[in-house]
Amino acid sequence: MEAGEAGGSSSSMVTEDMNGSGLMDFLDEPFPDVAKYEDFHTIDWLREKSRDTDRHRKITSKSKESLWELIKSLLDAWSGWVVMLLIGLLSGSLAGVIDLAVDWMTDLKEGVCLTAFWYSHEQCCWTSNQTTFADRDKCPEWRKWAELMTGSATGGGAYLLNYFLYTLWALFFSFLAVSLVRVFAPYACGSGIPEIKTILSGFIIRGYLGKWTLLIKTVTLVLAVSSGLSLGKEGPLVHVACCCGNLFCSLFSKYSKNEGKRREVLSAAAAAGVSVAFGAPIGGVLFSLEEVSYYFPLKTLWRSFFAALVAAFTLRAINPFGNSRLVLFYVEYHTPWYMAELVPFILLGVFGGLWGAFFIRANIAWCRRRKTTLLGKYPVIEVLVVTGVTALLAYPNPYTRRSTSQLISELFNDCGALESSQLCDYITSNSTSRALDDIPDRPAGPGVYSALWQLTLALVFKILITIFTFGMKIPSGLFIPSMAVGAIAGRIVGIAVEQMAYHHHDWIIFRSWCRPGADCVTPGLYAMVGAAACLGGVTRMTVSLVVIMFELTGGLEYIVPLMAAAVTSKWVADAFGKEGIYESHIQLNGYPYLDIRDEFTHRTLAADVMRPRRSDPPLGLLTQDSTSVEEVEALIKDTDFNGFPVVVSRESERLIGFVQRRDLTLAIKSARQKQDGVVSSSVVYFTEDAPILAPSNPQPLKLRRILNLSPFTVTDHTPMETVVDIFRKLGLRQCLVTRSGRLLGIITKKDVLRHMAQMMNQDPESIMFN
Amino acid sequence: MEAGEAGGSSSSMVTEDMNGSGLMDFLDEPFPDVAKYEDFHTIDWLREKSRDTDRHRKITSKSKESLWELIKSLLDAWSGWVVMLLIGLLSGSLAGVIDLAVDWMTDLKEGVCLTAFWYSHEQCCWTSNQTTFADRDKCPEWRKWAELMTGSATGGGAYLLNYFLYTLWALFFSFLAVSLVRVFAPYACGSGIPEIKTILSGFIIRGYLGKWTLLIKTVTLVLAVSSGLSLGKEGPLVHVACCCGNLFCSLFSKYSKNEGKRREVLSAAAAAGVSVAFGAPIGGVLFSLEEVSYYFPLKTLWRSFFAALVAAFTLRAINPFGNSRLVLFYVEYHTPWYMAELVPFILLGVFGGLWGAFFIRANIAWCRRRKTTLLGKYPVIEVLVVTGVTALLAYPNPYTRRSTSQLISELFNDCGALESSQLCDYITSNSTSRALDDIPDRPAGPGVYSALWQLTLALVFKILITIFTFGMKIPSGLFIPSMAVGAIAGRIVGIAVEQMAYHHHDWIIFRSWCRPGADCVTPGLYAMVGAAACLGGVTRMTVSLVVIMFELTGGLEYIVPLMAAAVTSKWVADAFGKEGIYESHIQLNGYPYLDIRDEFTHRTLAADVMRPRRSDPPLGLLTQDSTSVEEVEALIKDTDFNGFPVVVSRESERLIGFVQRRDLTLAIKSARQKQDGVVSSSVVYFTEDAPILAPSNPQPLKLRRILNLSPFTVTDHTPMETVVDIFRKLGLRQCLVTRSGRLLGIITKKDVLRHMAQMMNQDPESIMFN
Repeated sequence: MEAGEAGGSSSSMVTEDMNGSGLMDFLDEPFPDVAKYEDFHTIDWLREKSRDTDRHRKITSKSKESLWELIKSLLDAWSGWVVMLLIGLLSGSLAGVIDLAVDWMTDLKEGVCLTAFWYSHEQCCWTSNQTTFADRDKCPEWRKWAELMTGSATGGGAYLLNYFLYTLWALFFSFLAVSLVRVFAPYACGSGIPEIKTILSGFIIRGYLGKWTLLIKTVTLVLAVSSGLSLGKEGPLVHVACCCGNLFCSLFSKYSKNEGKRREVLSAAAAAGVSVAFGAPIGGVLFSLEEVSYYFPLKTLWRSFFAALVAAFTLRAINPFGNSRLVLFYVEYHTPWYMAELVPFILLGVFGGLWGAFFIRANIAWCRRRKTTLLGKYPVIEVLVVTGVTALLAYPNPYTRRSTSQLISELFNDCGALESSQLCDYITSNSTSRALDDIPDRPAGPGVYSALWQLTLALVFKILITIFTFGMKIPSGLFIPSMAVGAIAGRIVGIAVEQMAYHHHDWIIFRSWCRPGADCVTPGLYAMVGAAACLGGVTRMTVSLVVIMFELTGGLEYIVPLMAAAVTSKWVADAFGKEGIYESHIQLNGYPYLDIRDEFTHRTLAADVMRPRRSDPPLGLLTQDSTSVEEVEALIKDTDFNGFPVVVSRESERLIGFVQRRDLTLAIKSARQKQDGVVSSSVVYFTEDAPILAPSNPQPLKLRRILNLSPFTVTDHTPMETVVDIFRKLGLRQCLVTRSGRLLGIITKKDVLRHMAQMMNQDPESIMFN
Repeated sequence: MEAGEAGGSSSSMVTEDMNGSGLMDFLDEPFPDVAKYEDFHTIDWLREKSRDTDRHRKITSKSKESLWELIKSLLDAWSGWVVMLLIGLLSGSLAGVIDLAVDWMTDLKEGVCLTAFWYSHEQCCWTSNQTTFADRDKCPEWRKWAELMTGSATGGGAYLLNYFLYTLWALFFSFLAVSLVRVFAPYACGSGIPEIKTILSGFIIRGYLGKWTLLIKTVTLVLAVSSGLSLGKEGPLVHVACCCGNLFCSLFSKYSKNEGKRREVLSAAAAAGVSVAFGAPIGGVLFSLEEVSYYFPLKTLWRSFFAALVAAFTLRAINPFGNSRLVLFYVEYHTPWYMAELVPFILLGVFGGLWGAFFIRANIAWCRRRKTTLLGKYPVIEVLVVTGVTALLAYPNPYTRRSTSQLISELFNDCGALESSQLCDYITSNSTSRALDDIPDRPAGPGVYSALWQLTLALVFKILITIFTFGMKIPSGLFIPSMAVGAIAGRIVGIAVEQMAYHHHDWIIFRSWCRPGADCVTPGLYAMVGAAACLGGVTRMTVSLVVIMFELTGGLEYIVPLMAAAVTSKWVADAFGKEGIYESHIQLNGYPYLDIRDEFTHRTLAADVMRPRRSDPPLGLLTQDSTSVEEVEALIKDTDFNGFPVVVSRESERLIGFVQRRDLTLAIKSARQKQDGVVSSSVVYFTEDAPILAPSNPQPLKLRRILNLSPFTVTDHTPMETVVDIFRKLGLRQCLVTRSGRLLGIITKKDVLRHMAQMMNQDPESIMFN
């Protein structure tokens, strides 16, 4: 018997085995396609699990036969770890390549390296050793375009030429990105996380994690990020890693032939994706657990952990940031935080929650408009317009001209003694005889004030443009833009608190912890807290968010501020709507996603949800030994149900099993071709022994093999909250409703989702797929 | 209707509500005890959840009635967070008090502070500012006992007197501990984690988390740790935190009356416990998720996170370590690690795995002997003997004389320039003009070699004594002793590698990364990795282990070595037996714990497991409208089942519902007392309408209210792997087995556990409880 058999048959197999009869029944493999799912359909987790156990049992029993089978069984046992290793290696390498390419192409918009055109600005200037922000322009090997073309580096003309070329490059990159996506892989657009959540919950979207999607998404992600649009590479990297996972699944039949096992691999791949996106392996595992995955057994936890580790390690070996650190924005603060600072931290949490709620509403409204109006018809023009606007508005402001990760990095940074950026332009007093690390609070200089203005403008710009950017037909992640908004707001608040503490250190709130000449306030920490708050408001992560943030920055001491901001932000945002951005997009697209977090508290019963309703035609069902082949064929033709219950007889309607439509179609087709004597009037029977028929009747057709003898049933009195719970926890596709053993109806996952939508006063027809 | 009604009645309630009849049926509260569980019984998760939803619905609908009800509903919604806050505050404070008391009492064994007797050695010497290890004895305010009593601080006599008093104090502390446990709270012994795992999986052990247990465990934990036994306070702190959780549950009926909701709180409390034990809030949450909890919804994740945060914060405010750090063993290493070092790290992982497997076998064998032989009858003598042996063997060796956490702390430490401990006795070359942080590798001095000998002896001692210590009738945790074993082994390996690299830096393996005069190897890092490996081998944690380790030490950069060691250790240990120490103790005690990690892969069916078996008497069942009160009473008297299925009639045996034994007893008792006309020959009916009876019959008794109309059913053909999955995921207590609507039998959780034990060739009678 092939591993790819229906779950129900595992039980029939066992009984038949015990009876010692019907052995032939499960040695032939009549239809290898059985137990596959169609596109846009929901998988049955219990059935997948049962099939995997069958497969495992077969391998274990075979392994005792010969050495070769033993080796094969060991290989099978280790294949999970091998897949994890491969995913880690490939996703780590891809992330490294993307990082390097983005670095180079982002700088290409401004200029080129004379020593080697494939060097980014920073790499080009490594020899000059002047990589701090203000000194960057002094590096002689790096030439801006205007300087290269006209020879003059300064003046209005050169500025305008640079401005023009910057915009042109941006438009070129984004045009290339959107065209590639449109022509080769339409699934490569967006962040991919809503779809991955849906896929992991047991939905089939063929091609979403395919090789083409992987290739095109990787290339277009580089282009999209380099074009300077307000988007990040982090979400799409999760999609890229899941594509890698899917790719390596196809190497092992254990994973490629079982949709349930495949999802375990994909969960781990998502962890590896976040691990390389942020250099945060533990955060990645938690992200996969908290945000993405549906079914996450402990075994997957350990494997995800391994995949995330290998991925992070591969990335570190490639070392794209050139600092041999795993973390993206390494910071080192020299001051502890004080109790009183929790007040601004919580305020930043409130800001993050408000921004999250606002962003989700605005973005969903805009995406709905895109879906329903003409706008959706011209994605290329939309992308070009948004890119053009972004480039034109971003270039004049130094804080938006650079890549968003550089911006965040600078905002997170503490102003050391050697820091020369505008944000660190403090008025230094004479007493500079202290250690370099321990710089007291100082009054802000003019640079800081002008930086504050520019940051405020950048904040408004980022808030608005991100709404229009996320959801366009290019790869676009939301993590970095959200963090940028939060980091800007946080830094502004941080500088305000710092200056207040400096100028008013006799105020009662400062007096206890901030003596004059002490280093009390670290504005960079506020930026970090703000970034966490905004990211939390948009995605509603909590634990994984804090872990990512502190892996990202290495700031283990600042866990309490981060937690305070994350929890506040979640509370505030939840007050405006329970759904995070990913759930909102799932709903917008009508995917059949049964959220584990929603609580169903209505008083309805299974009887209210099941089909057929009173006005519907009766349920399409089969009898165990009195339906003819042509009646079955007519039933298949007339209805589009995914399966049919089998009852003892139409009079008693006592349920004996459930048969999948697909299995039934294939079985009858194969019987008609191969088995002699099977004609339209042949009786189909599901019992152990053939029914006693008049001798004039043609040979009956035994189909017990495809009958699931253990269909899931609930009584009509079962409260829907229990039914929802069962669907969620067991990952059912359908469930039969009975009353004292009599079949009354059927509830499918779609029925459950529709009922939930109805109960929440939403349009039940928004659930589009099976 | 009271919130504490049976889950099944929720459905009957709804239908009756829809019919507009029977309203009186659920307004009266005849028996408030209904839906409570008896001691050593298993809860039904689905029923608890259903009851909570009912309660929630009632509050929501009431909240529209008046402002007061609205406030009450808001209070109810926030009560979860309030409980978390309280748990965090109390467990943080208790942990702080325990830390301070242990510090003081550990030092009391050696001497006393003259300025204030309640000061520990370190606090006493704070003024002298000489707290490094070698200088400790130079602090004038601190006097050893011999010095105080005889006036002479040196010489053989003084040494022996100190030795004697040290042992005496140890015996005194441990005697006090074991006596308190025996007399006041027998549940306070052990680590408590196996029992908490069982309780969280849905088992009732009354008093295990009670107030007395909390008080006695806190006190005796201090005594046991201070006695110098080879045990830690970390595991028991989880128990203490869970007791706090249980205590605060009783404040809110939402939690005190619902065993399912109570378990959510306890899961979070366990997280808070680990959070304060190690100063690792995120590690605590992950520990609760990976190791302890059974049902861990996302809501609990957030709440655990909050509780862990508050607890850690409270502990930090108390600041028992006097360094205002959250972490227990803060380390700062100055060297990165190199690829080639992965080899010794993985070897340490192998050692950890071997030690874990060995320890579990040896400890379980010893505990089994304790259970079955005379040894178990004299727990006080056993504790005294082990304490005596420990103290006598520990005192001569400076590495075992100190508290184990101090030992681990020193082993983790990098040898800075100012370090004066024996372990840092390196021969310093003349070129000491470098920065203080960057000390090159040096040859080991005589101090290091003698330390190595002492450490080896300490290793053997710790390995052996821990086997006999864990499981005695005093509070005893396993984390710290395991970590100590690993840290000692790791430090020894680390020094060996360091010296090899120094003396043979021309070897091919060292040449690439270790030039002469460079600081290549950090022995402290090896100690950290070894500690992680041993802890992993014993407990089989992976993700939570790594997170705890790096929260514990602040060593974010060393995640890859830690992960490598943890995964290796788990693999090696798993090869010798799948169960960690906690699962082994659960099995030893015969608790009904359905492990989520075990995979059930046998080919049995529900029909093979269900009762009645062929030789058994028929199933005790009730009919819907033809059983008399006396027949019901006889059934209750003759059997000890927890509930009875209700069928249409004995002929058809079609299932209509399930009724709990407890509910039935109480209902009949109350009907006999309150309802006129109910006599022994009255017919009990579960249908909507009373059966048509001859007028001579007495008044029938309607019991539909206690009937669960949605009992969980599977068919007899359902594979056991699916049944096990359903029991695990839905947390069922029992499940009825049917074939085409006819009731065949019943499967309880105990049947499932017994069957699993049988399949694994274990004694099925080892499962003792329901």
